[in-house]
Amino acid sequence: MKIALIQMKVGMDKEKNLQKARQLVLHAGKEGARIAVLPEMFCCPYANEYFPQFAEPVGGHIFTELSNMAKDANVTLVGGSFPLEEDGKLYNASFVFSRDGQLRASHRKAHLFDINVEGGQKFCESEVFTPGEQITVFHTAGHTFGLAVCFDIRFPEMFRCMALRGAEAVFVPAAFNMTTGPMHWELTFRMRAVDNQFFMIGAAPAQDKYHVYHSYAHSMICDPWGKVLADAGENEGVIVVDIDLSENERARAQLPILSARKPHLYGMKE
Amino acid sequence: MKIALIQMKVGMDKEKNLQKARQLVLHAGKEGARIAVLPEMFCCPYANEYFPQFAEPVGGHIFTELSNMAKDANVTLVGGSFPLEEDGKLYNASFVFSRDGQLRASHRKAHLFDINVEGGQKFCESEVFTPGEQITVFHTAGHTFGLAVCFDIRFPEMFRCMALRGAEAVFVPAAFNMTTGPMHWELTFRMRAVDNQFFMIGAAPAQDKYHVYHSYAHSMICDPWGKVLADAGENEGVIVVDIDLSENERARAQLPILSARKPHLYGMKE
Repeated sequence: MKIALIQMKVGMDKEKNLQKARQLVLHAGKEGARIAVLPEMFCCPYANEYFPQFAEPVGGHIFTELSNMAKDANVTLVGGSFPLEEDGKLYNASFVFSRDGQLRASHRKAHLFDINVEGGQKFCESEVFTPGEQITVFHTAGHTFGLAVCFDIRFPEMFRCMALRGAEAVFVPAAFNMTTGPMHWELTFRMRAVDNQFFMIGAAPAQDKYHVYHSYAHSMICDPWGKVLADAGENEGVIVVDIDLSENERARAQLPILSARKPHLYGMKE
Repeated sequence: MKIALIQMKVGMDKEKNLQKARQLVLHAGKEGARIAVLPEMFCCPYANEYFPQFAEPVGGHIFTELSNMAKDANVTLVGGSFPLEEDGKLYNASFVFSRDGQLRASHRKAHLFDINVEGGQKFCESEVFTPGEQITVFHTAGHTFGLAVCFDIRFPEMFRCMALRGAEAVFVPAAFNMTTGPMHWELTFRMRAVDNQFFMIGAAPAQDKYHVYHSYAHSMICDPWGKVLADAGENEGVIVVDIDLSENERARAQLPILSARKPHLYGMKE
């Protein structure tokens, strides 16, 4: 199953971002991708002041464009994320469209990005966004997948839940920064893969030091052994990787982790 | 707080192993260590055929020797592990002794090491050992610590439980092998540290290609940012590292993970 990581620069013009995404998704389709993944906030500058300006509802222009891209490229499209307006609230939301353009799944980022690293990155998404309240697993192309957005990856419980619900790979549109990226990006993708013995697939904006937010980039695929199958580096581009989801079974048979859990021990006293 | 990682070769003679451990623990004490950590199976060859031969009860010779080492070296001693005989069963068990030689804590390995990697390591501890049924957190030197043995580290839930119960660092006597060591040892120590924003401290036998079990070694300390503060490499020796447990608070304030958990979402459907 060919997966396309779409690592794109994000500019200040929504329409230009959408057109660039469209071109890259069509390219992924021509390369034979079955599923393509866009980055977090692929058409909106990643900064609190822009989220309300760029926000749109379900069924709006961004949503419709994503649906059309999936259909026209003949790929299942994990449509990164955009600021979703819903019932007077804003969410950092991801939508998945099937090859026929139908909505297949959606995820509202459940763990908002609120950090303040000394001498490094500061951000407080919760000033603008409402967190989602669901863990998202969906079915497409005969397989089961998880879907999370960026800071969600910090929470091993969420990925364990996805594994227990049958996820064979998890898509994570994301945008780590130049503080946490070098420290934790690859580490976290690899370890969620190893712990849950599934594939981890992350798509991030390309590096762009002139942009309002400095994405670390390095869109990535890790296999269930924690091996990095693809690292898109810093620059814009589409990487297509052929993954074999049956590797999960081999990992789980040879190194039984999921089946060796002892849930009766894990009472989370708080 | 100075922590001593004791990375020793383990031979076939229990008494010689105990004497070597004693010398290294005394050395750690002279170096000013407050807590010293021995490897998993520090006095018993790591193979199923030897576990019953080397097994001893609580209060037996190994137990008493560990207590004496702690007292004589004036260190809290995380006594690696040894085959414990108890009620007709065998456990892979770790005992912690205070500086006065009193028993402070014990942990029976809860997740047994049963793997069969194609072209790599095979092992089936559960043929010999009974698994423990507890997660272990203890208090010493004014701080709270977790204690786990080797394969336990594969289970993020266990380490999350320890964090939620107040652990500031977790000791893991361990013996990864030459298959899983290069793949997962450092990755796993770093990630448990990052996820739980505490220190991870692992002690392993030195590499010894003539021994019945080929330990990967690389005894290690990681800080709550996932930074490797010490890696003992392949050879025998004592490494003393001064760690600052208050770094946990800084990590947790700057990059709030533990406080941003959403336990109501993490229902583990199985």
